[in-house]
Amino acid sequence: MAETNRAWTMASRPVGEPAPKNFALTESAVPEPQHGDVLIRTLFMSLDPYMRGRMRSGPSYATPLKPGDVMTGEVVARVEKSKSQKYVAGDIVRASIGWQEWASLSAHDVKRVDPSLGPVSTAVGVLGMPGLTAYHGLLDIGQPKAGDTLVVSAASGAVGAVVGQIGKINGCFVIGVAGSDEKCAYVVDELGFDAVINYRTQNVSNELGRLAPSGIDVYFDNVGGTILDAVLNNLANKARIAICGQISQYNAPELPVGPRNFQVLLRTQSRAEGFLVYQFERQHEVGRARLASWIREGRLKYREDVVDGFENAPTAFIGLLRGENFGKLLVKLSD
Amino acid sequence: MAETNRAWTMASRPVGEPAPKNFALTESAVPEPQHGDVLIRTLFMSLDPYMRGRMRSGPSYATPLKPGDVMTGEVVARVEKSKSQKYVAGDIVRASIGWQEWASLSAHDVKRVDPSLGPVSTAVGVLGMPGLTAYHGLLDIGQPKAGDTLVVSAASGAVGAVVGQIGKINGCFVIGVAGSDEKCAYVVDELGFDAVINYRTQNVSNELGRLAPSGIDVYFDNVGGTILDAVLNNLANKARIAICGQISQYNAPELPVGPRNFQVLLRTQSRAEGFLVYQFERQHEVGRARLASWIREGRLKYREDVVDGFENAPTAFIGLLRGENFGKLLVKLSD
Repeated sequence: MAETNRAWTMASRPVGEPAPKNFALTESAVPEPQHGDVLIRTLFMSLDPYMRGRMRSGPSYATPLKPGDVMTGEVVARVEKSKSQKYVAGDIVRASIGWQEWASLSAHDVKRVDPSLGPVSTAVGVLGMPGLTAYHGLLDIGQPKAGDTLVVSAASGAVGAVVGQIGKINGCFVIGVAGSDEKCAYVVDELGFDAVINYRTQNVSNELGRLAPSGIDVYFDNVGGTILDAVLNNLANKARIAICGQISQYNAPELPVGPRNFQVLLRTQSRAEGFLVYQFERQHEVGRARLASWIREGRLKYREDVVDGFENAPTAFIGLLRGENFGKLLVKLSD
Repeated sequence: MAETNRAWTMASRPVGEPAPKNFALTESAVPEPQHGDVLIRTLFMSLDPYMRGRMRSGPSYATPLKPGDVMTGEVVARVEKSKSQKYVAGDIVRASIGWQEWASLSAHDVKRVDPSLGPVSTAVGVLGMPGLTAYHGLLDIGQPKAGDTLVVSAASGAVGAVVGQIGKINGCFVIGVAGSDEKCAYVVDELGFDAVINYRTQNVSNELGRLAPSGIDVYFDNVGGTILDAVLNNLANKARIAICGQISQYNAPELPVGPRNFQVLLRTQSRAEGFLVYQFERQHEVGRARLASWIREGRLKYREDVVDGFENAPTAFIGLLRGENFGKLLVKLSD
């Protein structure tokens, strides 16, 4: 039975917010694995804000997509055929094959997923790139100490939710910033954050001043923009800002302007540092094991926002950039 | 013979650029030292950009001046009378007595100056706060490695000139940014920087791109504003920005706007960190000894811009904020 492989490509570069026309669904034959290869079939596809950066030309830490290229992304997949001694059919793996249903690739380019750690979808979520981003970004860049006040934006998201809970495990006073009353309630009631601010309905700077009268020691920044400005207005001395994402800026066609606030870093002797999770690659297995044990102990909760059907990926991704998802956004392709 | 003490006070808070009317010359009797005190007479008064910050209300790392307060500052002075066993008349000291000719204060509040290290004026210059700011800011915050490209703004100034020369001692490729052809020539011909950019006549971003094709590893930022933007446009991966000053912003009545460039820190996994020289106080004596030995070896040069006469202090200070001085700005009061 010859199967058809479907893939989403970038049809054209978006200007501003991506639109459905910027994506094209293409079909091709499912490839045959060659010697040393595995043929894999996607179970879950991860959708993440960084993908918007790949759609942009200009300098980046990664090569930008060209029109016609398959959209970047990591998937959880099942090995369907193996021509490698490393894997057998039925093994669960993750691989950066982009937005597509099938792929044949070298066994060296897939990573084994241990299904005993949790549902396999977590391999691209709380136990994958987003979870490790939270773990290393907070602990290695943010360097929280017990008693510190930690603020995290996009607090109910794939990364932010993990950041705040690790902050609690580390003895911090944790303030989340999120974009709906439902998300805010979740962050406090389910995840155990100490406080939360709804940035769509509250004055973030005033609320931070009230909730953190001694200032913010660590800010885990997923969003940039005016929420970053509000945090800078309320920084403690010797604060650390872990710059993980700037999602509020990703759809901007040109570099927006804002207050020139480097002077705050000087006044408070603070540090702002950007990082990529790959910097910490050699420590990932330790991080993954700790995240898994916190989940087992009930100290780390996670929420997945699962969209059914490969055809819905572009719409889900556009919504992600608007903050419409609630938890780690995944597209489910097959069981 | 009863002497008169003169002091410059802040008459009123400047809005924008300070004007002579913001300063008032006051007279009082020279005080008598009490038990444990020394009476000192100012020889050299240091003028530094940070003083503009003290004239501003609002949050700062130091208490702002109130109208009528003596202008903040450190001086080199001679002990005229001592009622302390620690000092005798004729000793040279430095003390933070502000802009005034005489002061009587506890012997604990003055620091001995070793005249064998160099001319006594250097105690508030290359061997004082500005030199130590350069030393610790570059080495501890900037963390340059041999082969790194280092950029320093206000390159002929009290701090910048020392930064660039320590960069050369550390094996860096050093690019200065300065505001006149004369300063630019000095920085390359006298101080040995590898290259220099005149920010008033050249496109800083383009020149940095040309001079640092692999990107800037360390930026020692004295000025902020558009020069900082230009550096961010040309940052290497894992770059370090030591935020020492933001003089381009000090006279701004309101926080100016500029490009939202925290995203560059993310893309390049770079760090921007503000610091105050006082953070490194316990290491100051080591720093001062190294600076002195580099001067003796001819590896560290310095230039002083000495204004004669206490009455000229406000005009000199206003010029400093415009970049009109050339080298460490001092006011000479008496021999």
